[in-house]
Amino acid sequence: MLKGIPAILSPELFKIMLEMGHGDEIVISDGNFPAASCAQRLIRCDGHHVPELLEAMLKFFPVEEEEDFTATLMAVDTDNARELPPIWEEYRSILEQEIDNSVEFGYIERYEFYERAKNAYAVVATSEKALYANIILKKGVVTE
Amino acid sequence: MLKGIPAILSPELFKIMLEMGHGDEIVISDGNFPAASCAQRLIRCDGHHVPELLEAMLKFFPVEEEEDFTATLMAVDTDNARELPPIWEEYRSILEQEIDNSVEFGYIERYEFYERAKNAYAVVATSEKALYANIILKKGVVTE
Amino acid sequence: MLKGIPAILSPELFKIMLEMGHGDEIVISDGNFPAASCAQRLIRCDGHHVPELLEAMLKFFPVEEEEDFTATLMAVDTDNARELPPIWEEYRSILEQEIDNSVEFGYIERYEFYERAKNAYAVVATSEKALYANIILKKGVVTE
Amino acid sequence: MLKGIPAILSPELFKIMLEMGHGDEIVISDGNFPAASCAQRLIRCDGHHVPELLEAMLKFFPVEEEEDFTATLMAVDTDNARELPPIWEEYRSILEQEIDNSVEFGYIERYEFYERAKNAYAVVATSEKALYANIILKKGVVTE
Amino acid sequence: MLKGIPAILSPELFKIMLEMGHGDEIVISDGNFPAASCAQRLIRCDGHHVPELLEAMLKFFPVEEEEDFTATLMAVDTDNARELPPIWEEYRSILEQEIDNSVEFGYIERYEFYERAKNAYAVVATSEKALYANIILKKGVVTE
Amino acid sequence: MLKGIPAILSPELFKIMLEMGHGDEIVISDGNFPAASCAQRLIRCDGHHVPELLEAMLKFFPVEEEEDFTATLMAVDTDNARELPPIWEEYRSILEQEIDNSVEFGYIERYEFYERAKNAYAVVATSEKALYANIILKKGVVTE
Amino acid sequence: MLKGIPAILSPELFKIMLEMGHGDEIVISDGNFPAASCAQRLIRCDGHHVPELLEAMLKFFPVEEEEDFTATLMAVDTDNARELPPIWEEYRSILEQEIDNSVEFGYIERYEFYERAKNAYAVVATSEKALYANIILKKGVVTE
Amino acid sequence: MLKGIPAILSPELFKIMLEMGHGDEIVISDGNFPAASCAQRLIRCDGHHVPELLEAMLKFFPVEEEEDFTATLMAVDTDNARELPPIWEEYRSILEQEIDNSVEFGYIERYEFYERAKNAYAVVATSEKALYANIILKKGVVTE
Amino acid sequence: MLKGIPAILSPELFKIMLEMGHGDEIVISDGNFPAASCAQRLIRCDGHHVPELLEAMLKFFPVEEEEDFTATLMAVDTDNARELPPIWEEYRSILEQEIDNSVEFGYIERYEFYERAKNAYAVVATSEKALYANIILKKGVVTE
Amino acid sequence: MLKGIPAILSPELFKIMLEMGHGDEIVISDGNFPAASCAQRLIRCDGHHVPELLEAMLKFFPVEEEEDFTATLMAVDTDNARELPPIWEEYRSILEQEIDNSVEFGYIERYEFYERAKNAYAVVATSEKALYANIILKKGVVTE
Repeated sequence: MLKGIPAILSPELFKIMLEMGHGDEIVISDGNFPAASCAQRLIRCDGHHVPELLEAMLKFFPVEEEEDFTATLMAVDTDNARELPPIWEEYRSILEQEIDNSVEFGYIERYEFYERAKNAYAVVATSEKALYANIILKKGVVTE
Repeated sequence: MLKGIPAILSPELFKIMLEMGHGDEIVISDGNFPAASCAQRLIRCDGHHVPELLEAMLKFFPVEEEEDFTATLMAVDTDNARELPPIWEEYRSILEQEIDNSVEFGYIERYEFYERAKNAYAVVATSEKALYANIILKKGVVTE
Repeated sequence: MLKGIPAILSPELFKIMLEMGHGDEIVISDGNFPAASCAQRLIRCDGHHVPELLEAMLKFFPVEEEEDFTATLMAVDTDNARELPPIWEEYRSILEQEIDNSVEFGYIERYEFYERAKNAYAVVATSEKALYANIILKKGVVTE
Repeated sequence: MLKGIPAILSPELFKIMLEMGHGDEIVISDGNFPAASCAQRLIRCDGHHVPELLEAMLKFFPVEEEEDFTATLMAVDTDNARELPPIWEEYRSILEQEIDNSVEFGYIERYEFYERAKNAYAVVATSEKALYANIILKKGVVTE
Repeated sequence: MLKGIPAILSPELFKIMLEMGHGDEIVISDGNFPAASCAQRLIRCDGHHVPELLEAMLKFFPVEEEEDFTATLMAVDTDNARELPPIWEEYRSILEQEIDNSVEFGYIERYEFYERAKNAYAVVATSEKALYANIILKKGVVTE
Repeated sequence: MLKGIPAILSPELFKIMLEMGHGDEIVISDGNFPAASCAQRLIRCDGHHVPELLEAMLKFFPVEEEEDFTATLMAVDTDNARELPPIWEEYRSILEQEIDNSVEFGYIERYEFYERAKNAYAVVATSEKALYANIILKKGVVTE
Repeated sequence: MLKGIPAILSPELFKIMLEMGHGDEIVISDGNFPAASCAQRLIRCDGHHVPELLEAMLKFFPVEEEEDFTATLMAVDTDNARELPPIWEEYRSILEQEIDNSVEFGYIERYEFYERAKNAYAVVATSEKALYANIILKKGVVTE
Repeated sequence: MLKGIPAILSPELFKIMLEMGHGDEIVISDGNFPAASCAQRLIRCDGHHVPELLEAMLKFFPVEEEEDFTATLMAVDTDNARELPPIWEEYRSILEQEIDNSVEFGYIERYEFYERAKNAYAVVATSEKALYANIILKKGVVTE
Repeated sequence: MLKGIPAILSPELFKIMLEMGHGDEIVISDGNFPAASCAQRLIRCDGHHVPELLEAMLKFFPVEEEEDFTATLMAVDTDNARELPPIWEEYRSILEQEIDNSVEFGYIERYEFYERAKNAYAVVATSEKALYANIILKKGVVTE
Repeated sequence: MLKGIPAILSPELFKIMLEMGHGDEIVISDGNFPAASCAQRLIRCDGHHVPELLEAMLKFFPVEEEEDFTATLMAVDTDNARELPPIWEEYRSILEQEIDNSVEFGYIERYEFYERAKNAYAVVATSEKALYANIILKKGVVTE
């Protein structure tokens, strides 16, 4: 533990975030995501939910804002009558606190999402129970 | 994740608990414990507190009940006028739900505790903020 | 050993099952299967038969039920005059105890089965003497 | 699997037995033995009992017969009113089928046994439920 | 060394043979074969000849008999006026002692043989001086 | 790079600082210190000076204030006529900005300092040209 | 540290430069470059700027002068109204001090630059804050 | 050092030469060759020249004489007015002392040579200052 | 294989012999010796006898002749009525062919021999069936 | 190779020299020295002599001049009638070119020298044929 660093950010996760560069992606996955079979670098956060991690990470992690989307979600794979996963709104409100622009999500379907995860710099595996709760962040530039 | 296994128990922690045998010890340490420098095998549970882990572990972990003490704590190193750490009572009530005998704690001072941790099979590093919150469990026999 | 965990599930196998996610596959192979040359992750269970392992694993492992098939077998490669391997009925009855739907098997021929095993998350190598006794399970979602 | 080799003897266990020389010791431990913390080389045989392994191993493993004892057991640590563990007689009958002399057991107490295991060439970890079921074999000379 | 196991079969070679499954191939190569650059798993048997190894291996190794050929040789690459390598007859007589069918050899040319060796489970490198002395065995099924 | 983290703190150094616990020590060594032969964990910061690193580290690193000394220096090994190394005053002023108490230095002689470094959790190797510029920090407790 | 070797050149970086041969490339990247995900061999120089490293490296590193370009930069990806990055002129003046010919830069766009970095022998990761500050050097021949 | 083995042949180089088989290639490269980026197995001989190594290696290394060329050189990449590198004649005279046939060289251009080196069993990196001094040897058969 | 190197000397064994220096010891052990548990570096020569290896090794290995003994044997541990192991005379005659002085053996008892083997540079494990056939050679100086 | 770095200094040796700090020792050993069994870090320079290496190393390596001796030699172990090894004078003249003080050698006997080598940071193994040619250098301070 260090002063000013949320305890939920493990040494390994913080190191990974520091190592990433402009354009590198990180996946925060829910508890059912096949993280171990997709990840080039796997950080397990068993017992945690995505929102608490996302909030802690965004204190330090600059999200790429020059792209079309603030973050990428796994598309709900059924007809549009279904409601959107409530956790997405939670993500939106957390992101809005940290970035300057309005939050726009991109959506990709399940198997395309897996391929994206395989190319990501790292996958953070949580125990999030909510469905469709996986999210991809692309690192922006640190300009300060 | 698997059916019936609390999500807070990571694959690595569960494997470690399965590998341990009669008499092997495991330390659940608080956030300030020098876990990385003491542990033969280190399992990080950043962002978690001890009680929630202890409760999940005891569902599966048989505590040695033939010894004098149910578990060992790090002794408060000042005069006895001071109150006992409140988290100890929390530990007692969790332990009482899982074992048959009444719960008795052993106490060892800080540097002796470090030596004991160096000989333990594993150290689980939490982010517990409570002071004097480290606890050592000795594995008993599975007889079922 | 731990309370409530069948002893036949080794620490390594339990860890592997915990690590797997939605859609990951695990092969339980018979004694003649070329497990070491196919497996990305190999768990040896020498001396054991498939049914006893399958039964223990299904206590914890959620089988994917949204797909067409409950599990996949290696197709018998000769004419249909031959009887079906009796061990398949044993598998059916074990599966029926753990899943809600009726059990449907998929069948793929030998060399296709090998390719599927190479892409599986893990292969469990038993010493099962019965022929055509290999079986592939796909992990479903833990929703509790 | 190979012709004439019992399937319960895993590739790793067979290799270990082949590597051992005159005077090297191997421990076959019960399910509660702290095998992972004692073993220089650990061979897990989860789900198996000691007698079936012992019998298979003795087909190939020459027991040292020039020493005083055929094998060493962990001494029962209470008063002699207690009955001897029934599994010891099972061990005796298995050993008698393979060696020429009468079977004599040596007995050492629990913590001395642990030290002996730490110096052994390997520890085979079974899931034997019987108590006091650990046994140490010393390798003799192959003279054929 | 163990009772009943020919000393020429090293612990590593025996382990490899045990690990192989139905359809896996093993190459026993002569002293000039580029074994180290071809082998996925290399077992060196420097100073030994192929026939003595072949004979010892076949005591345990079940040769696939459902295929067209009992074993595969590297084809002599010149005109058929040349005599066949005498060591081939030695191989035939060793194989005939262990298998039930008559022995038929398959032949593949040098560079195709190299590719086959690269896909084999293992290559055993001998110091055999005879030319065209490389031989590939495919593992069959253990049915006992 | 991350928002709010000085770029001089490498991913590896930040991870090391996060892993350390109460009582663990870290050495920031000058360019002539035998860091590679002393360090259990070595973090190279070639080209950097100690003060700039010390200042960045203290933003996050809680110095143990319950001990007698705020930090430990390598004692000047000659008579006291010599002036104190000027860099020590620089260290004092940096430390005073981050801790609540007045700054007191402990002094140990060269070879004792080497032994202390061998027991430290990590050694940070700078290219500091100033003499007697090595400094040891002991980690305190994060209480927020 | 050694006599005559600038302290900013770490042991690992100097070793890498010595190992490189004619035609091998090295990337000196700015602080936002995705160095860890591109590099075959990664040398971190956290806290340093590119010009000071470039100047030190060119004391020893022979730049390939038979090619069209002295070095390769990441092209500015917008319209040409924008001014050239001022750091490029700094690079030019450093290069002119060490090579005999006039300095000509090649320019490749961002994603092509990433591919080039993946094929380079090594990537040196600095904390350079200037934008478009990445530079690729190709090693020439040492003829002395 | 051993009796009768030239000291310039390091333990690692001698082991590599022993491991190679019929048709495997070894590159002896000059000081500017990008050996570290091409080699599957790299043997550094810093400070040595090619002729002294070549002469020592040929005492033991059988050159393939059934191919068209005794050895392969990197072609001079300019017009034929230029003189041939004088070191080539040195190679010819060393080779003539060890092989029975007359020496014929094959020539391949620079980038094709790099590809060949990447497929070679090993690359020996010397500090040879002569230009176009790289040479590839193909191992023949040991028939004695 | 190489010209002039006996095929029984494996690449690994030859490398080990080249690496050894003045005063380093190598043990050539019989088939019952606990080589794997004693050896710092183990070279398996399964299927071979000691005399053929000893003869091949002495072609290159300089035996220390300034010490009292040419080589060291494991003393026969019974009364002197027993005959000396006949293989010792075989060793004597092989040694006499390679060294200038008369051959004198030193003798140490079994457990002292084990300790000596643990400190030796390497142990060569043969399958020699003769009893008391272990021998230790000390490397001398190469003066040519 | 790099500009201004003698080619005899390999990448690994240069890295080792850069890593060493004040008081660390390096041994340059002759061809018969048991370097591989003594060295914590071994740098092989097969085929080279000590003087050429010593001369190249001293261009960069600052010798500790505050100690009593400039360098340490292995004492000749016989009576003083014998002449001093001529190579020692060669060492003296090389050292005198690089250090400011007159050169004084320390002498330690053979087995004490071995212990010193085991504690040294590295051992450089040459093929020097001269006897008593081993030399230990202690690193001084780089003050420029």
